[in-house]
Amino acid sequence: MSRIQLTLIQIDNYGPWTVTPAPRREVDLQTLQSRLYADLSQLIGNRRGYVFFTRFDNMIAVTNGLDLDDHALIQESIRNRYPISVSMSIASGDSPKTTLSKASSRLQQTGSAQDKHRTEQLCGTPLDADDWAADDVHIAHFDVNSATAEYTDSLDAFSTFIRIEQGYAELMKHFYEAHDGLSFFVGGDNVIAVSKPLSTSTYESILDHIKSTVNLELKVGLGTGPTAQDAGMAAKEALEECRHHEKDVARETIAEEGY
Amino acid sequence: MSRIQLTLIQIDNYGPWTVTPAPRREVDLQTLQSRLYADLSQLIGNRRGYVFFTRFDNMIAVTNGLDLDDHALIQESIRNRYPISVSMSIASGDSPKTTLSKASSRLQQTGSAQDKHRTEQLCGTPLDADDWAADDVHIAHFDVNSATAEYTDSLDAFSTFIRIEQGYAELMKHFYEAHDGLSFFVGGDNVIAVSKPLSTSTYESILDHIKSTVNLELKVGLGTGPTAQDAGMAAKEALEECRHHEKDVARETIAEEGY
Amino acid sequence: MSRIQLTLIQIDNYGPWTVTPAPRREVDLQTLQSRLYADLSQLIGNRRGYVFFTRFDNMIAVTNGLDLDDHALIQESIRNRYPISVSMSIASGDSPKTTLSKASSRLQQTGSAQDKHRTEQLCGTPLDADDWAADDVHIAHFDVNSATAEYTDSLDAFSTFIRIEQGYAELMKHFYEAHDGLSFFVGGDNVIAVSKPLSTSTYESILDHIKSTVNLELKVGLGTGPTAQDAGMAAKEALEECRHHEKDVARETIAEEGY
Amino acid sequence: MSRIQLTLIQIDNYGPWTVTPAPRREVDLQTLQSRLYADLSQLIGNRRGYVFFTRFDNMIAVTNGLDLDDHALIQESIRNRYPISVSMSIASGDSPKTTLSKASSRLQQTGSAQDKHRTEQLCGTPLDADDWAADDVHIAHFDVNSATAEYTDSLDAFSTFIRIEQGYAELMKHFYEAHDGLSFFVGGDNVIAVSKPLSTSTYESILDHIKSTVNLELKVGLGTGPTAQDAGMAAKEALEECRHHEKDVARETIAEEGY
Repeated sequence: MSRIQLTLIQIDNYGPWTVTPAPRREVDLQTLQSRLYADLSQLIGNRRGYVFFTRFDNMIAVTNGLDLDDHALIQESIRNRYPISVSMSIASGDSPKTTLSKASSRLQQTGSAQDKHRTEQLCGTPLDADDWAADDVHIAHFDVNSATAEYTDSLDAFSTFIRIEQGYAELMKHFYEAHDGLSFFVGGDNVIAVSKPLSTSTYESILDHIKSTVNLELKVGLGTGPTAQDAGMAAKEALEECRHHEKDVARETIAEEGY
Repeated sequence: MSRIQLTLIQIDNYGPWTVTPAPRREVDLQTLQSRLYADLSQLIGNRRGYVFFTRFDNMIAVTNGLDLDDHALIQESIRNRYPISVSMSIASGDSPKTTLSKASSRLQQTGSAQDKHRTEQLCGTPLDADDWAADDVHIAHFDVNSATAEYTDSLDAFSTFIRIEQGYAELMKHFYEAHDGLSFFVGGDNVIAVSKPLSTSTYESILDHIKSTVNLELKVGLGTGPTAQDAGMAAKEALEECRHHEKDVARETIAEEGY
Repeated sequence: MSRIQLTLIQIDNYGPWTVTPAPRREVDLQTLQSRLYADLSQLIGNRRGYVFFTRFDNMIAVTNGLDLDDHALIQESIRNRYPISVSMSIASGDSPKTTLSKASSRLQQTGSAQDKHRTEQLCGTPLDADDWAADDVHIAHFDVNSATAEYTDSLDAFSTFIRIEQGYAELMKHFYEAHDGLSFFVGGDNVIAVSKPLSTSTYESILDHIKSTVNLELKVGLGTGPTAQDAGMAAKEALEECRHHEKDVARETIAEEGY
Repeated sequence: MSRIQLTLIQIDNYGPWTVTPAPRREVDLQTLQSRLYADLSQLIGNRRGYVFFTRFDNMIAVTNGLDLDDHALIQESIRNRYPISVSMSIASGDSPKTTLSKASSRLQQTGSAQDKHRTEQLCGTPLDADDWAADDVHIAHFDVNSATAEYTDSLDAFSTFIRIEQGYAELMKHFYEAHDGLSFFVGGDNVIAVSKPLSTSTYESILDHIKSTVNLELKVGLGTGPTAQDAGMAAKEALEECRHHEKDVARETIAEEGY
């Protein structure tokens, strides 16, 4: 099964803020954005969720296990410590693609991302915390085969970055269009995706697609669990199995008793 | 003219560290990476440089104005506050592409990114601090026309992200291959590039290329200055000029007396 | 009633680390210490506990509601993001004084704070999470009457600081020796204390003692709850009541249904 | 000689902000305060200054080497990243006591710390950056003899804290009243003081005073330099000399060529 809960997190009226009254120094914006993301990682991660930086002003989180109060407290904690505030929109469903689409529509209905009067929206309804299942969340953790030897240690740093980036751009588009999954670059040569349950052969076809379109060889560890934390850690262990046994796809399940 | 100084910053032996003795929790890795980047933004930004997160384990910085002691102090400060250390390789030249290539080779010659005995390398020679020019650094700041109205407020969040990401993937590749420039996504719908001095019509052709290949309409502000901070702020002001006067390309020069 | 759970948090072998191989830069130590404290505030605060910076290398936390797994995860999160690790010792009881004494002994029995082989100890047994009461935790929040008008805006900054500091030094000693309570300076003119349940007249006698010994007039808000977060917020609201109704002592109870 | 430049840093209208519209969660305030201090440590430390947390809402910095632009940039950087802003008042002189007094008066003349219209003041005039001397700044770094063996490993954690705190309260008052120095607890068993040049026998008398009044045995390393960073590092090295040669007072001078 698959019953994923996603939260779209949007900095309120961020664009105008960055240039009012005059353009703010880029180093401060970068510091603000990356620390906000780090704090959300901790606030959501301590509740067994995952958040991805995406565009930094719009972030996407897997929030199975977080209820409305958790979301409200996170909004409050950000407002208490940053010069900006965030809106959040929650949705759940079996397909990450349609779930995020629901969350996006709900937030859009409350006003524009650049409407200065639309602040700290909290919309949507989380899953009932008592009604979870060990196979609610499916995470796929991709990385590039021999990335250090073939790229980092061999090409110049930007050429390597171009290769990784072209691979990610193709993977995020293909996985979304062909299989409803959401893929996020998380640094190094790593991409983490949330998806519906998919067969091993489907993942093999995804790896083939990436190899044939952008000539990049990936492997992937698959994990399932009641929360992003559980599924994500299972996926990491599956990826270790790929590494140690030269597999392209491996799968692990962690059936946590609850959260 | 153009005399750019670049520093390649690489976390030492990071990949193995993330899975030793077992895979570390992703939320902690994300927090570590984004805070390290925030700290480097401040450490380098307070010396008038720019750093880009790139792959997070390999970051690229524009460091005109920073000497060897500055670099060594930054390495020391990271080592004093993080469980990891960083190596740095400095190079300078008129082309960002060939300059980064030099910096990459130098670092690669000291050993593999995953060699646990190759730590805290500091290679290369910075520009003489007394020998700077007001047109040493050229920065281009791109953003997407009507991004909020046409994308963020209209499409679902991942479709918007796909559009931005495809645009960035094409821009970073094209700018590098056709004009030796290094482009970095910096959040929202913004890309900041370091380049040689290029004509306005060259930038128009780049915008045309992006429009025709990935159907994304960009505008760009161009800035020149003795440091990344100066050139970057000029580029931001030029981008404001684009916004307020509906231009595709605008240019500003800040001739700072020194740094 | 009163059934407080305290955790002593100690940086492992910190003193030697700060001077090995040579004294580390003070700004980095200050950054490390204050960020570690900020992170512990969030890690513990997100689980409804409070942590006080105390000596920074030895911190004291009120951890009602946190079980062994929570403590272990916090240790792991610190180790994943800092160049140092922490040991923790948990104890519970009705008197903060004897409870902290128990926690201290347990940690001391595992070795010296400067034994480099004694790392990441986790000792003691938390309260059963199912066995909590609405009056487990008692918090007193003190501040100085008219601190801004009489001190900050009138005296020079160090003279004000001396006044606040003498007041705190007397309060922390007196409260501990006379009533078994643990008081912590938390910034500005604020002191937060954990205590056994004490009568209003006892608090009046404490305020009298401070006034007569160091000539500082305090007021205090008292809060009770199942966790530090609940009791602490009740105490803050009680302190607001003091402010608005010119009382010296006020009391609030928040009876949360659970945590 | 002694020509110290001090900056008083005050969070604007902080008290009211912490309780508007209702008391904010203590964990967020603690996180905000300690991170603000960490950021100021880096912003000032990267310019060779020292900042002490003092009361957190009022901080005191030694800023020899920082000009008005540096101060303005730090104010801007804080405003760009925090929900609060800071005012700063600069003064210089040969006595830390009278210098801080001047800085305090100047800031007080601009309005109350709780006046919501008095924000981001920047008053006073820094020393001329070209007119520095190698003996401008004098730092004394105190610690407690055998603190780990006699206190941390032997007493309970709060009793140790009481001993350290009583010692600090006496030292900060005595040093200020008798010798015009400003002493700051910096964690562990460490106190860092800025002072006029004082003889070794004066320091011996200070240690005697602390021993006789609060029964705490200290030692002290003395450092001199053109900036806080230089003098502070010299003081640390002098303290190491005390440790290794069982001295009570030792002295080091670092004569940096400039900053």
